[in-house]
Amino acid sequence: ALIGLAGDLHEADVADLIEALPEDERVPLVRLLGDEFDYATLTELDEAVRLSILENLPSDTLAEGIGELDSDDAVYILEDLDAADQAAILDQLPYSDRIQLQRSLDYPEDSAGRLMQTDFIAVPPFWSVGQTIDHMRETEDLPDTFHEIFVVDPGFRLIGSVPLDKILRTKRTTKISEIMTEDPQTFKATDDREDVARAFERYNLVSAAAVDDAGRLVGMLMIDDIVDVIQEEAEEDLRGLAGLGDEEISDTVLVTARSRLTWLLVNLCTAGLAATVISLFEAPIAAMVALAVLMPIVASMGGNAATQTMTVAVRALATRELTARNMLRVLRREVLVAFLNGMTLAVLLGTGATLWSGLPGLGMVIAMAIIINLFFAGVAGLLIPVALEKAGVDPAIASSVFVTTVTDVIGFFAFLGIAALWFGLPL
Amino acid sequence: ALIGLAGDLHEADVADLIEALPEDERVPLVRLLGDEFDYATLTELDEAVRLSILENLPSDTLAEGIGELDSDDAVYILEDLDAADQAAILDQLPYSDRIQLQRSLDYPEDSAGRLMQTDFIAVPPFWSVGQTIDHMRETEDLPDTFHEIFVVDPGFRLIGSVPLDKILRTKRTTKISEIMTEDPQTFKATDDREDVARAFERYNLVSAAAVDDAGRLVGMLMIDDIVDVIQEEAEEDLRGLAGLGDEEISDTVLVTARSRLTWLLVNLCTAGLAATVISLFEAPIAAMVALAVLMPIVASMGGNAATQTMTVAVRALATRELTARNMLRVLRREVLVAFLNGMTLAVLLGTGATLWSGLPGLGMVIAMAIIINLFFAGVAGLLIPVALEKAGVDPAIASSVFVTTVTDVIGFFAFLGIAALWFGLPL
Ligand SMILES: [Mg+2]
Ligand SMILES: [Mg+2]
Ligand SMILES: [Mg+2]
Ligand SMILES: [Mg+2]
Ligand SMILES: [Mg+2]
Ligand SMILES: [Mg+2]
Ligand SMILES: [Mg+2]
Ligand SMILES: [Mg+2]
Ligand SMILES: [Mg+2]
Ligand SMILES: [Mg+2]
Ligand SMILES: [Mg+2]
Ligand SMILES: [Mg+2]
Ligand SMILES: [Mg+2]
Repeated sequence: ALIGLAGDLHEADVADLIEALPEDERVPLVRLLGDEFDYATLTELDEAVRLSILENLPSDTLAEGIGELDSDDAVYILEDLDAADQAAILDQLPYSDRIQLQRSLDYPEDSAGRLMQTDFIAVPPFWSVGQTIDHMRETEDLPDTFHEIFVVDPGFRLIGSVPLDKILRTKRTTKISEIMTEDPQTFKATDDREDVARAFERYNLVSAAAVDDAGRLVGMLMIDDIVDVIQEEAEEDLRGLAGLGDEEISDTVLVTARSRLTWLLVNLCTAGLAATVISLFEAPIAAMVALAVLMPIVASMGGNAATQTMTVAVRALATRELTARNMLRVLRREVLVAFLNGMTLAVLLGTGATLWSGLPGLGMVIAMAIIINLFFAGVAGLLIPVALEKAGVDPAIASSVFVTTVTDVIGFFAFLGIAALWFGLPL
Repeated sequence: ALIGLAGDLHEADVADLIEALPEDERVPLVRLLGDEFDYATLTELDEAVRLSILENLPSDTLAEGIGELDSDDAVYILEDLDAADQAAILDQLPYSDRIQLQRSLDYPEDSAGRLMQTDFIAVPPFWSVGQTIDHMRETEDLPDTFHEIFVVDPGFRLIGSVPLDKILRTKRTTKISEIMTEDPQTFKATDDREDVARAFERYNLVSAAAVDDAGRLVGMLMIDDIVDVIQEEAEEDLRGLAGLGDEEISDTVLVTARSRLTWLLVNLCTAGLAATVISLFEAPIAAMVALAVLMPIVASMGGNAATQTMTVAVRALATRELTARNMLRVLRREVLVAFLNGMTLAVLLGTGATLWSGLPGLGMVIAMAIIINLFFAGVAGLLIPVALEKAGVDPAIASSVFVTTVTDVIGFFAFLGIAALWFGLPL
């Protein structure tokens, strides 16, 4: 009954079912399902679960299951295995499959070549629509799904593409060359998958050709795999900004704790730096404890404003909305926004601090400090991500720590420093 | 020359070109392009730019341009206009177009009904593949693009779907009923677009039917529009967590400043609350200024740990990976992770504080405070988003402020309170 059930379910649902099982029952379920188990299910599993299943199945079973997948799914599963396990599985595949998969695996990680499917339909331009349809009716091993066919010259160089709806609307006698889209949006197999995803999104693509350096057609990129990339890349930025690695909900406590600790340790240094700044002002604080009460407000408002600017900058860099062309305009805008909000907060905080402490001078000091800190928050929130991007570091991952360091250090320094001067406190 | 150029470009590129122009040249360009201007370009513009163009074009020009669009794009443009402007445009459209658009607009915001396209192909199950192909060859006004055709009964209730590649592989004499997918993944027009997007992603869909409450086919949902939803929803969470509204890079300084100020003011209250906690301990701080130096470290490490947990929780709620079923397991995991990292940080900070101050007692105090704060960070980071979701509030938008309030208040209270007790400081 279970076997029948699993056979009817979509892979994503089977994957959820497997993830819901206790760890030691997962491999037995896969074995039990035997031929009924669709190995595409593995692509829907969290990485930790997938790897543990792969390690516990014999390589001939795996080779058989993986051999039946679309090449992109096979690559997706194989790429996370170590070289020895990969070889063990590849060796048991038929020669042509092995060569194709190996070629995809040879493309760099996160490239279009890893994402593409090497099964597709390519026809010469002089075929008629009728011939093309007959070809598809007669050929046995077509790809599982496809939304367009490609047109190639004798050297297998891509010269056009035809969406399926166009084929269906056209008379049998029409030549493919008459209805094909010339110069369709095409990607190099070495292109970064993030750039590919952006183009799919921008140009509303459903599938596209991947070509090698000589312009020869080598694969087909499909929207469902691109959707996963879009999702993963947006998620990656979100996680990066929050100081998370690529943990998954199925990871163990230890793995999770270790991956999060890295970020906490980095932030410990930032916090230590901020504490060092404060320690320079121990004497003024001892003389006027109200400073200790108010100083975290200055730092934290700066941190919040900087996070806003930084998040906008990180996403605008990722979507290429922020470029060298509009950089100065955006910087001017951020500075103005920071200044406006700095003024508003200064008035509110200045009044509040005066009322609370009975010292108008303290109100003036916190007002000045907040304006200064918000200004630096705006500038650092924009320029730090930009500088990191230029330096080839992912701004989503590294920006936060630098930006909060700036707002903490400047916040404490400006507030305590101005206060010491204003009130002539001992230093 | 410009006109020819714009005619050749993809809408997304024309949209970029318009956005790059100074504000007062945008409408003149659209007028200049006249019939060459594809109104689909409007869907690719930032909202502020789109609205300003719409306000500056006469409604008959708009009606003409919008009338030529796919219904989903027309709805996308119309939905942001106020009722009077909408009516002015709708009134000038042919009756059947008007009715269709009005029906889509009547579905709630963010529903599948707003996203769907009302042009699609539906055939009866008893047609043959040949008949279906001939129908498509002969019908003039087919949708611009489509990836499947739908099969309906005489009451126009959906009974199946056939992807185009299947039609192309099948002999002309085969009946549609033999090759159709029965019970295809279908959505109600009233479904939330976020749920639709999740299903597209999960089941790797390229298009799907939308039906009304009676199961009658009313529209077709397409992946390119779903991709925009996925992108927007992920973006929305990211912005929410960073305290950003839905500002766009083309918004004015004033609009941007005002939208960000809201969040800063909310955080000002949090910061004020934290300051109040500190002010309870003015006497102990005056007696031992080292406390003022170390206290921000405790609060900030708690804030960082809480942000990590909260981000995981917000995303897991959005993707439905976190449910009532696994809530307890996740909570246990978060508590354990918090405890492990709390211990590590306690050892490091305790040692550091002891070395810096020469007071082993101060090391013990900060170690205890950090363990307590990280524990609450883990619990609050998970339970606050969950509670907000239950209460029907978007956890991505509201979580941060509650969570940082918890870690600030508990951080300062635990550290200063334990210190006061430990060293017997005056209160
Ligand atoms: Mg999954
Ligand atoms: Mg992978
Ligand atoms: Mg798009
Ligand atoms: Mg695929
Ligand atoms: Mg896939
Ligand atoms: Mg990225
Ligand atoms: Mg990446
Ligand atoms: Mg809208
Ligand atoms: Mg998917
Ligand atoms: Mg559309
Ligand atoms: Mg669209
Ligand atoms: Mg959401
Ligand atoms: Mg939403």
